[in-house]
Amino acid sequence: LIREYEDEIQGHIPTFGIPDEEFVSIKQLITKEEVRVVTLAKLKLRHDMCLWDIGAGSGSICVEADHLLSHGRIFAIERNSEYRQFIKENLLKFNTRNVMLIEGDAPDCLEELPDPDRVFIGGSGGRLWEILDTVDQRLAVGGRIVLNASTLDTLTSANEYFGNAGYEVEVVTVNIARTCPHSNYKLFEAYDPVYILTAVK
Amino acid sequence: LIREYEDEIQGHIPTFGIPDEEFVSIKQLITKEEVRVVTLAKLKLRHDMCLWDIGAGSGSICVEADHLLSHGRIFAIERNSEYRQFIKENLLKFNTRNVMLIEGDAPDCLEELPDPDRVFIGGSGGRLWEILDTVDQRLAVGGRIVLNASTLDTLTSANEYFGNAGYEVEVVTVNIARTCPHSNYKLFEAYDPVYILTAVK
Amino acid sequence: LIREYEDEIQGHIPTFGIPDEEFVSIKQLITKEEVRVVTLAKLKLRHDMCLWDIGAGSGSICVEADHLLSHGRIFAIERNSEYRQFIKENLLKFNTRNVMLIEGDAPDCLEELPDPDRVFIGGSGGRLWEILDTVDQRLAVGGRIVLNASTLDTLTSANEYFGNAGYEVEVVTVNIARTCPHSNYKLFEAYDPVYILTAVK
Amino acid sequence: LIREYEDEIQGHIPTFGIPDEEFVSIKQLITKEEVRVVTLAKLKLRHDMCLWDIGAGSGSICVEADHLLSHGRIFAIERNSEYRQFIKENLLKFNTRNVMLIEGDAPDCLEELPDPDRVFIGGSGGRLWEILDTVDQRLAVGGRIVLNASTLDTLTSANEYFGNAGYEVEVVTVNIARTCPHSNYKLFEAYDPVYILTAVK
Repeated sequence: LIREYEDEIQGHIPTFGIPDEEFVSIKQLITKEEVRVVTLAKLKLRHDMCLWDIGAGSGSICVEADHLLSHGRIFAIERNSEYRQFIKENLLKFNTRNVMLIEGDAPDCLEELPDPDRVFIGGSGGRLWEILDTVDQRLAVGGRIVLNASTLDTLTSANEYFGNAGYEVEVVTVNIARTCPHSNYKLFEAYDPVYILTAVK
Repeated sequence: LIREYEDEIQGHIPTFGIPDEEFVSIKQLITKEEVRVVTLAKLKLRHDMCLWDIGAGSGSICVEADHLLSHGRIFAIERNSEYRQFIKENLLKFNTRNVMLIEGDAPDCLEELPDPDRVFIGGSGGRLWEILDTVDQRLAVGGRIVLNASTLDTLTSANEYFGNAGYEVEVVTVNIARTCPHSNYKLFEAYDPVYILTAVK
Repeated sequence: LIREYEDEIQGHIPTFGIPDEEFVSIKQLITKEEVRVVTLAKLKLRHDMCLWDIGAGSGSICVEADHLLSHGRIFAIERNSEYRQFIKENLLKFNTRNVMLIEGDAPDCLEELPDPDRVFIGGSGGRLWEILDTVDQRLAVGGRIVLNASTLDTLTSANEYFGNAGYEVEVVTVNIARTCPHSNYKLFEAYDPVYILTAVK
Repeated sequence: LIREYEDEIQGHIPTFGIPDEEFVSIKQLITKEEVRVVTLAKLKLRHDMCLWDIGAGSGSICVEADHLLSHGRIFAIERNSEYRQFIKENLLKFNTRNVMLIEGDAPDCLEELPDPDRVFIGGSGGRLWEILDTVDQRLAVGGRIVLNASTLDTLTSANEYFGNAGYEVEVVTVNIARTCPHSNYKLFEAYDPVYILTAVK
């Protein structure tokens, strides 16, 4: 019965690549569909992993990761209470099974969490290096950190940290434009570019 | 026992976002990781769907789709025998459960397949409109066709077809560059741009 | 004396690459600096040429072309009276010597103009093929037409025309993002992509 | 007579936007047409300025700048003797009037040159900060430095220098792809992305 009910609600939700407009959020906050799935690809998730999502925003990364991590655990860390409300609603809407929402500031609130196999950093609240220090201490060898930067400052800062710490680093620049399906004309509208940095310990 | 054996083999294979170099292929053939996952996102797969992969190449899209379609059926259509050998090896390596390899030319060989919910067109062998005509007859309302174009000719031709046939069309341009993780310098190397066209019936 | 006066006014104006904000215009109208100079490069101007600028907008292309065409003639065709006012002000401000502003609809108003060596099409008012037919009749062999398209529709339509008419066609996609010099953070903001089509007769 | 002779040679050379293949060079060395003209735009040249071109490569920037600087002086600094030979041939071919070729390593060889109004840095031979220190001492207030970076390392390093030195900095990312005019299909081929950094003193 429960399963049928869920099916009814989720009938139009894909297993992957959820449209931006399905998420409860504000427009600037959400990691856009195309960028989100490249980010998930870079995380190289496996079914039983532990993922920290630091600066989870509206939770779109968590929600999609939950569908890829059938036996894993995901911790969504968010200090902004408005955003946490979005996350709560999205976890409910998309029926996640393995996501736990953590209220608090990173890196302070990370102490009580289990060690991560994977870490996604969507926001750092101005404390990037502190967060990276904590993550570096807790992440297993072979673990991965993925960070989305929209400013040169964040990209440079993260790249410098990982260079010093001896990680293997890849940077992918993503320039996407899309047309609106509902328009008569196919006008290309650009997303602002995103730099997806992946660091392997 | 079988499960353990598989785990051993697949220990380093992510559930999603398989690195290009893990596939048996030749370099030009494979749909690159970042483009592949955006393509999969645009397909909006659900667990029990039927997917046709026309011009499957080395099978990278099939393999990843298999992991997202736990109860679905995937038909990989490829007319080139060398490429079919790549597909066979990749289906084995990545332990797919729902992919069937079809030898032959599209659209001729499509007749015997069950109706699709989703169609991906990676190559058309110069018979794009014929293929689209067949797909159009067989695809259910609400079904989706995703096509990756690297030439303006293919993009234009597909866009014209779908416009005439009354589909809702979105075009996403994907410009990606990445640095090599093993280099001392972070030199950005560009992929050629890809146009991902999504048509909804 | 006149020269001194001009120098005083124009002291900060470069010979090339005029900043967007120096033009009298509205934001959506102006061809952005980076796109403008690539467009000018594609025109392959020489000193004594005749250039038609069809859909001249705020006149930014004309103004820069004037500086590159010391003995040439430039006809700025614009049907929108508000835009023509912008052009007038910009021609004055940037002290052009060879630009003549033409009021009217293309292709109707093209009849009285001298044959062009180069044609730039920034806007077509929905009459692209009619304009191209007229241009094709008037352009000398070896002449060049450059067209900036922001929609797939215009790109496709122009490409089809030039293919049928036997022109040699190049398409350049331009994806630009820039940071704001006055901000504390270097946040990259994307321009919408532009397709610069160059056709050589 | 001289003028006629020049006209004959240069009959097909535009005043601006010289095609890459017109330059004597090797392929990897040349600043590609589209990137070159955006670079020139960022330099904001005026007719009587002094420009240093550090790491001049095949001299394509110098040659085009010469056409924009009718009364200026341009110093092309290049330490590689093979590249200097390219520059010599290009200065002759394109009939420049204001370019002087300087043999030597920057910053050592900069001492004897007149103070610059504009500086372009195409290459630094691993001595970027030393060069920037010298340039910073010699450049007038309001002067501009433009640097093309293809690696994150150079971009980061230059950005850090200019941040510390109090310059106003803009970074433009340029992602270009173009089709081949001589092909039957319009296949888009990407250039590797370039970061054009502009610093104003």
